[in-house]
Amino acid sequence: MSSLRSAIEAMAAYVPGEQPQGGKFIKLNTNENPYPCSPRVVQAIERACATGLQRYPDPAASSFRIRAAQVLGVEPEWILCGNGSDDILTIVTRAFVGEGELVRYPTPSYVLYRTLAEIQGARYQEVPFDANWSLGSDFTESADDLRLVYLANPNSPSGTMIPSSIVREMAERLPCPLLVDEAYVDFADDNCLSLVAENEKIMVSRSLSKSYALAGLRFGFLVAQPHVIEQLAKVKDSYNCDALSLAGACAAIDDQSWLVANRAQIVATRGRLVSTMRDLGFQTPDSQANFAWNTHPDVAARTLYEQLKQAGVLVRYMEYPRFGDGLRISVGTNEQIDTCLELIRSMV
Amino acid sequence: MSSLRSAIEAMAAYVPGEQPQGGKFIKLNTNENPYPCSPRVVQAIERACATGLQRYPDPAASSFRIRAAQVLGVEPEWILCGNGSDDILTIVTRAFVGEGELVRYPTPSYVLYRTLAEIQGARYQEVPFDANWSLGSDFTESADDLRLVYLANPNSPSGTMIPSSIVREMAERLPCPLLVDEAYVDFADDNCLSLVAENEKIMVSRSLSKSYALAGLRFGFLVAQPHVIEQLAKVKDSYNCDALSLAGACAAIDDQSWLVANRAQIVATRGRLVSTMRDLGFQTPDSQANFAWNTHPDVAARTLYEQLKQAGVLVRYMEYPRFGDGLRISVGTNEQIDTCLELIRSMV
Repeated sequence: MSSLRSAIEAMAAYVPGEQPQGGKFIKLNTNENPYPCSPRVVQAIERACATGLQRYPDPAASSFRIRAAQVLGVEPEWILCGNGSDDILTIVTRAFVGEGELVRYPTPSYVLYRTLAEIQGARYQEVPFDANWSLGSDFTESADDLRLVYLANPNSPSGTMIPSSIVREMAERLPCPLLVDEAYVDFADDNCLSLVAENEKIMVSRSLSKSYALAGLRFGFLVAQPHVIEQLAKVKDSYNCDALSLAGACAAIDDQSWLVANRAQIVATRGRLVSTMRDLGFQTPDSQANFAWNTHPDVAARTLYEQLKQAGVLVRYMEYPRFGDGLRISVGTNEQIDTCLELIRSMV
Repeated sequence: MSSLRSAIEAMAAYVPGEQPQGGKFIKLNTNENPYPCSPRVVQAIERACATGLQRYPDPAASSFRIRAAQVLGVEPEWILCGNGSDDILTIVTRAFVGEGELVRYPTPSYVLYRTLAEIQGARYQEVPFDANWSLGSDFTESADDLRLVYLANPNSPSGTMIPSSIVREMAERLPCPLLVDEAYVDFADDNCLSLVAENEKIMVSRSLSKSYALAGLRFGFLVAQPHVIEQLAKVKDSYNCDALSLAGACAAIDDQSWLVANRAQIVATRGRLVSTMRDLGFQTPDSQANFAWNTHPDVAARTLYEQLKQAGVLVRYMEYPRFGDGLRISVGTNEQIDTCLELIRSMV
């Protein structure tokens, strides 16, 4: 239609990982948790169904914020809930970034950051990671109209992490807010949560999709200083979190012993995945997430991806301009990873 | 925070209707359906829970689009799904309206339209309804940078409707797209669905919140021409609809006999509400929605609202600049409406 914003017309659609409906693939391509969520989540959802769905949910999501605040050691006023952490990323972008203004993020990283900038009609600056997945001083340089910096930490596709002590220094140098996207942090040894109280420019987003095995539920949240949350709340849809996801998210965050046990299993399987891939000749960085990033000096990643798909195993082939390509493999069950590794062994 | 967009800092937060958690009020303030949803919806949600929540939902929401297309007599490519129809309104606004550009809507109407414009940094033009709730030629006049016109039809708070034949003419005269917000249309005698195929400028949004008794589920959708849907899909979050709301929405739209029976009950109760309010001296227009709008020549609406709240009945007090105030009363069960009417009878 002629009156569409030119920014929208010009942009390419964001392409999420393949989500084949039906269950014929071993699905190691979108960093889902291979195990079912805590049974308490399903019980809570069934109770919410029994209460009835005809009423609007609580627009403030108070029940979740109270519980999450206890778990995280903050006050409920420091938390904003979203329809997945993608919703949180959207809200933050809309609040801070106007048309023609600038956002910055590392590359290769989460591809959605660019899409968010494009939808907003903003400009974006991609700062390449160093060879060892650290970031140089250009990541924190001032720039005209720089309004927001995104940092996926742990990063995707690498699975690597910038230490929180370095993130603290980055935020101090930056002239704008820093959104630390901690979608994978429950699988890591470090996190940036405590930095939020130190510096109002630091915001931390979290997701229940991966570590709580709730990708189907769409629930994420932001931790930021209360005066920031208050402004961001203006930008969110009033009823962005539905009654069932709220009930499920409350039960999930209440069941920390489930999280601990699931995390231990994922971390153990991740160790086997990483070491075996290295044995097979891949360059695979240590991972702090629930996936591993794999490149091979001789074997083409795209060919491997296609052969694996043919054999019923879906991994993520990723190609980045001026960087190269590789395979991002999500940590499945031991059995799924064994199947995947045996197939790769026969291909390289 | 200093780097917040000035448009966000300056705006007032949108205030949704009161949503007291817990059940002590007869709740007639946010147009929820007083009856529980189709039992098939709950069954479908329980099945989806049993399948597991660890996987991402289908980003294209194909299952719902296929079913809704059959019910509505369009093709699936004409449908875009949203996390409530508020999400749809947001997506359409972001796709068509840039900073400083203009949107238009009637007043008094859905208050969110202004908020959507403000978040986008856009300008807004409010065109007053005529005394009989029709709209004059100024509603379709050209204006510099006019990018989108919203029309809630049936309108809230009035419950009145612009006939589809008039909407067709409006769209022909307008220089920009017209979003017909049909959140309440399942309770009406007319709708604008068939106009979408006639004119690419017409888009129709629908909600499952009211007529399907699923306000807690957050599900809405847009019907527009496929080339429009394709562009709008770029603006939506990939996974904006969760697995449970998708399952529930499919079951809901499949159960058209539930809709027909529920609608008949609501329409019957609405008739009693409107006629009794008139008997009590209120000016209450004929309603095509699941609520009625009530003003009284002598009795202050705010006082009535407060007295009703004191007595445990929550209705919506609404005040519009340069228009006045009144009470919007949602159609509850017969019993709830009787209680409300008896209280009002004792107050006027």
